[in-house]
Amino acid sequence: MLRPGRLKGPVYASMSRLVMKFGGTSVGDVDRIARVARIVASEARRGRGLAVVVSAMAGETDRLVGLARGAGGQGGNEALSGAGFDDEYDVVVSAGEQVTTGLLALALRRLGLKARSWQNWQIPFRTDAAHARARVADFDTTELGGSIDEGVIAVAPGFQGITVGNRITTLGRGGSDTSAVALAAALKAERCDIYTDVDGVYTTDPRIVSRARRLDKISYEEMLEMASLGAKVLQTRSVELAFAQRVPVRVLSSFVEPGAPNPGTLVCAEDQIVEKHIVSGIAYSRDEAKITLLGVANSISAEANIFGRLADAGVNVDMIVQTEARHEGRRNIVFTCPDRDAPLAAETIESQREKVGVDEIHVRRDVAKVSVIGIGMRSQVGVARTMFEALAQKGINIEAIATSEIKISVLIDAAYTELAVRALHTAYGLDAA
Amino acid sequence: MLRPGRLKGPVYASMSRLVMKFGGTSVGDVDRIARVARIVASEARRGRGLAVVVSAMAGETDRLVGLARGAGGQGGNEALSGAGFDDEYDVVVSAGEQVTTGLLALALRRLGLKARSWQNWQIPFRTDAAHARARVADFDTTELGGSIDEGVIAVAPGFQGITVGNRITTLGRGGSDTSAVALAAALKAERCDIYTDVDGVYTTDPRIVSRARRLDKISYEEMLEMASLGAKVLQTRSVELAFAQRVPVRVLSSFVEPGAPNPGTLVCAEDQIVEKHIVSGIAYSRDEAKITLLGVANSISAEANIFGRLADAGVNVDMIVQTEARHEGRRNIVFTCPDRDAPLAAETIESQREKVGVDEIHVRRDVAKVSVIGIGMRSQVGVARTMFEALAQKGINIEAIATSEIKISVLIDAAYTELAVRALHTAYGLDAA
Repeated sequence: MLRPGRLKGPVYASMSRLVMKFGGTSVGDVDRIARVARIVASEARRGRGLAVVVSAMAGETDRLVGLARGAGGQGGNEALSGAGFDDEYDVVVSAGEQVTTGLLALALRRLGLKARSWQNWQIPFRTDAAHARARVADFDTTELGGSIDEGVIAVAPGFQGITVGNRITTLGRGGSDTSAVALAAALKAERCDIYTDVDGVYTTDPRIVSRARRLDKISYEEMLEMASLGAKVLQTRSVELAFAQRVPVRVLSSFVEPGAPNPGTLVCAEDQIVEKHIVSGIAYSRDEAKITLLGVANSISAEANIFGRLADAGVNVDMIVQTEARHEGRRNIVFTCPDRDAPLAAETIESQREKVGVDEIHVRRDVAKVSVIGIGMRSQVGVARTMFEALAQKGINIEAIATSEIKISVLIDAAYTELAVRALHTAYGLDAA
Repeated sequence: MLRPGRLKGPVYASMSRLVMKFGGTSVGDVDRIARVARIVASEARRGRGLAVVVSAMAGETDRLVGLARGAGGQGGNEALSGAGFDDEYDVVVSAGEQVTTGLLALALRRLGLKARSWQNWQIPFRTDAAHARARVADFDTTELGGSIDEGVIAVAPGFQGITVGNRITTLGRGGSDTSAVALAAALKAERCDIYTDVDGVYTTDPRIVSRARRLDKISYEEMLEMASLGAKVLQTRSVELAFAQRVPVRVLSSFVEPGAPNPGTLVCAEDQIVEKHIVSGIAYSRDEAKITLLGVANSISAEANIFGRLADAGVNVDMIVQTEARHEGRRNIVFTCPDRDAPLAAETIESQREKVGVDEIHVRRDVAKVSVIGIGMRSQVGVARTMFEALAQKGINIEAIATSEIKISVLIDAAYTELAVRALHTAYGLDAA
């Protein structure tokens, strides 16, 4: 039988592809899904092949987690003969995304577009077998890519995958961003657009600084520093993956009228940013505690002992600063951890005090970490001085300093957080006109 | 590396297997799922390999259907270039069962049992591609069966499957019973136990006849007649499949204390029923309408014309009885249909009246069909007489009679339904002692 569809012959060159990702709030109900469909339709008119990654409807994954806990207990520790509960947790909590893939495919068809859902086992989207915190593995998108090139919009679930043994996994909270970037890398997409409830990455938190500006571009490295410092626009892991795979990621708003200007912020390689800012942004993190160890014995294993024990105790240590102490042959060590971990950290070191040799332990709670971040710092002198002068002018005392190649962080009294962020935003010329 | 698990060697003979099925009410919340887990655990102690088929939690599929309609419209008719919406409807509405498979697997592990969920694509459980009303196709259960034989309880979703093209399908409402029977057939299980909210199949509706008795056994043919007449214990399609595949099906209560006596009713082949009842049960169906066509012209195509048009109009015709009319060369035809279809049926025939040649059309609404069913009827005379006598004694007028090999149905005034059912239940000696 003659099949007219075949007469066109195979598609030799794959068309340009784009991955779009919408989170749980953007697909929170049927009306919002219809809105997402209009955004996708508007993008489809530009002629690129599209894959859309969706989260579960807002609240759905929480509901499923609640059910799984009710049925299986907290899991993990209640393991059964070596096999945990996590594989079946993943089965339960991953069901929400299937619903949204189908709903969005329906909404797109209703607009007259060709669309279909792709579950992970249909692609197949592979991960390792670390249930509840799986990492994306290599996978083949030949069939998916072929369908996209034929003009069928692919709708895929975020947050999850399957192992080579065909069991269901999840990537952990926020994993949908990572799914989208991984799919973009596998499909060799020219970009991955992450639609969120903000319209881009800002120079700092607009709730604190009303003159904060949306950045047109930011480098992967800067974005990683911003993300790890609490600017929760993108999940850190997704930025790492985008960095490693060189996938340009655009963060933009899902609440702008479909088709209206919505430039967002492009997260890309440093060499794609022509006009480099010395400082791209000011990040902050509250609820930190500063722990000061005075007069630590000069032993070669002191640091290993201290931080090894803290890690065993589950204390999430962030900054570590070490200086020489007044007493000869002794040192002072300052480190920070989340405020809630402070009592545990103090206890842990107290129990090792004799062994390691520590004169005094001081815990200071309610401190904040404020950081200036910018790839331009690498080639620029005087960046730190600007920071210290701006803080001094406001009478803000610096309790500790740590620097990396593209970041300077200071610890200050948490009460001064907003004041410090505003002063630094102005000092580095970031205020909007 | 030596793998101790391997030293046992392969399992050469597969163990005896049992399929258990629990509906939406039985898995309606986490507490009920825990209860189902205890029932399964109690069965596991008997040493058979177990597969458990579960529905979505009560209400969940309705919720998903609502979402799908909201996103895609009513589907089907709003088709897009030949391809309907049904494939994506199936993606959405089939998500509920994945949740319950995971939850039950967790609950079973919590009781210390080995268990895992199997999604349809993991088995793979195949169907044809008739979305929303798919029929089960052949499928291979080698891997599933192997896991069961190793003592791992398999938990699988009802109501759905996948096509050879790896798209998700659903079997239509009530399809979970069919899934369970199909799995039992494929696994060569010795039986399929369907847990429901009743404790078996009764001689008649216990709400009408307080002395109705639970049947220990009933043949497939009788069960089909009972099911099609409105005794909604098992979905008709599942009984047909069990009949065709010779799978013994037991209907029993999911509300009996786990481990307590719960014999239920075995639906099985006629030759497995030693003591055959002449009549096994009395079924009834209200909300019927009787349509009488008097003086239908003696044309060879009259019936084909009439019932063809009714079928085109979507009228679900049930009984058809034909007699000779008073006028020579003309006949009378009586048929029944659901009461709600009566106006449409009358209209349809009215529009064909001239063409076909019908003298009079009478519509009688509010009639009921009462049937006595029993495989013993085949070899027994006088069964019909007992029926007519019992009804006559109560002064109940018979409006039409239809018989099959194992069933006698009469149409009566709906107001007499209970009276008729009670009288027949007594007349055939079915009353409990």
